[in-house]
Amino acid sequence: MTQRHRVLQVGLGPIGIEMARRAARRPNLAVVGAVDIDPKLEGKLLKDVVTGAEVEGHVVTSLEQAVARFRPDVALVTTVSDLARAVPTCVPLLRAGVHVVSTCEEMAFPFLTHPGLCKELDEAGKSGKAACVGTGINPGFVLDFLPAALSGPMDRVRLVRAYRVVDAAKRRGPLQQKVGAGLTPEEFAAKVRGGGFGHRGFMESLHLLCSAFHVDPTGCSTFIRPVISPKEVKTDFVHVMPGQVAGIHQGAQDATGRIVLDLQMYVGADQPHDRIELTGEPNIAVQVEGGYHGDVATCAISLNAIDSVRRASPGLRSMLDLPTVHAWMS
Amino acid sequence: MTQRHRVLQVGLGPIGIEMARRAARRPNLAVVGAVDIDPKLEGKLLKDVVTGAEVEGHVVTSLEQAVARFRPDVALVTTVSDLARAVPTCVPLLRAGVHVVSTCEEMAFPFLTHPGLCKELDEAGKSGKAACVGTGINPGFVLDFLPAALSGPMDRVRLVRAYRVVDAAKRRGPLQQKVGAGLTPEEFAAKVRGGGFGHRGFMESLHLLCSAFHVDPTGCSTFIRPVISPKEVKTDFVHVMPGQVAGIHQGAQDATGRIVLDLQMYVGADQPHDRIELTGEPNIAVQVEGGYHGDVATCAISLNAIDSVRRASPGLRSMLDLPTVHAWMS
Repeated sequence: MTQRHRVLQVGLGPIGIEMARRAARRPNLAVVGAVDIDPKLEGKLLKDVVTGAEVEGHVVTSLEQAVARFRPDVALVTTVSDLARAVPTCVPLLRAGVHVVSTCEEMAFPFLTHPGLCKELDEAGKSGKAACVGTGINPGFVLDFLPAALSGPMDRVRLVRAYRVVDAAKRRGPLQQKVGAGLTPEEFAAKVRGGGFGHRGFMESLHLLCSAFHVDPTGCSTFIRPVISPKEVKTDFVHVMPGQVAGIHQGAQDATGRIVLDLQMYVGADQPHDRIELTGEPNIAVQVEGGYHGDVATCAISLNAIDSVRRASPGLRSMLDLPTVHAWMS
Repeated sequence: MTQRHRVLQVGLGPIGIEMARRAARRPNLAVVGAVDIDPKLEGKLLKDVVTGAEVEGHVVTSLEQAVARFRPDVALVTTVSDLARAVPTCVPLLRAGVHVVSTCEEMAFPFLTHPGLCKELDEAGKSGKAACVGTGINPGFVLDFLPAALSGPMDRVRLVRAYRVVDAAKRRGPLQQKVGAGLTPEEFAAKVRGGGFGHRGFMESLHLLCSAFHVDPTGCSTFIRPVISPKEVKTDFVHVMPGQVAGIHQGAQDATGRIVLDLQMYVGADQPHDRIELTGEPNIAVQVEGGYHGDVATCAISLNAIDSVRRASPGLRSMLDLPTVHAWMS
């Protein structure tokens, strides 16, 4: 038995609760407490929030108090998607020597977009001798780590194509809503114009791959458009008529089109899968049958990353810097 | 442009020559000299041995002389499959601060089988502040690193199945010979009884996965048997009649059968592929269409590993410990 890591859960939204529940089942982890900004949760026993799990400690609203009281080794930060909003949470943790694994999408590879914030995180990590990484299934694995790792036995890479097709009908309700299922094309367009709509993390995935493969990241671009349903689709949460929006089609590529990332998430997708095509010497085509399951995967990879983060050099790291993240048998 | 690594090629067999040739094409590597035990090569210009490549320096038989004269950052050691015979080569390199990437099959994960030799390598690396890793396509990637890396987004792994089917007819002549193509079943059986026959590295791959997944490695076993050809197969090197041996079928598993590795290498294999099946939460099935090409891949992954080895902590490392090995665009 290796060392049991003391885990602090920061953020008790749906993903945070699920994360803590799954963490509690791991033989190498002990959930010792949680932090949430909701004053209604202050002082509650964590086991009353994360039901059906063996979790110790309680919920506090103060990060400083949590660190002092629960003495965590690692914090799981599942609060926000924006790096700027995650940094004030992560910096004091890192300074106090608490390693950070976060599902913050912008933390997956922020070195090009937010150099100043990266410096803050990196310095905090180095001063506290703690490492910090942003991970998840996407960004964090399918459209960034995986194409890079699969290129390991290639002598040269010329083109990278990574595709992910998700049947949103098999995912939770909020996700179906998030991808716009059931909207009219006009409503979808209005949401896009409004901003903040759609899947986060494309630029981060693309930047990680540009950095790994030494491709100029200048002029990287993204797109978002609706997948229009050709058929009627009913799920437990939405009812989509032909001609309505079934979900989103998003993507990103570098200026020369050498790296292309492509995601379709919609209700009624017939053949969900992840697919990586690497052109070079030799060519490699890899199919993940059915694709990685998003919700389970994001919690799982974060928990699996704990062991790797604790072995990484201090500071802000990416998934490519860490000792390989992998699961356990139990 | 990142730092250009000065590369010493140690061993000028077919793989070593191919390695140096491919290294010379890399913008981040400079081949500065070579070592080989063959006294006929002593003093030869390396470019006369590794033809058609921009390589500097010459060939010497003395490792110490090579280190002093060529001042390498990294040595590519492609000499032997046995760890015991590789250690006397690697220890002085590591002590002198030269990082080592080796195709020595037993170095892929020697921690359980050769703890004493591992200690020697590890201490030499730590004293010289250099890291050492054994890699290749198999062992090194398909049947060990890859199943572990693909498990990253899984909450639990219960069973691991890794299959590799190689069409030996598409590989070089020595490999077709190595797998026994064209032998009678009786000749094949005699070779097996004679020992030292077949593909090396199964135990190392299995031990890496046992270690990653926390499976008891006691009672791990391997098997080797012939693939009998149902048809006539002619290649440039062998002519196999129905009923003769087309190649080998080898495998390994832990005592409980939770991890099963399976390799078939034979002439006339219809659908070469690599396939990883991970049972757990969720299940994952990944197919590498056509499979990774062995010869290119072993050179490529070794060269790609250089950058990761230089960033690793000193001592003896495995592929799972390193920052992820990946290719470059160039």
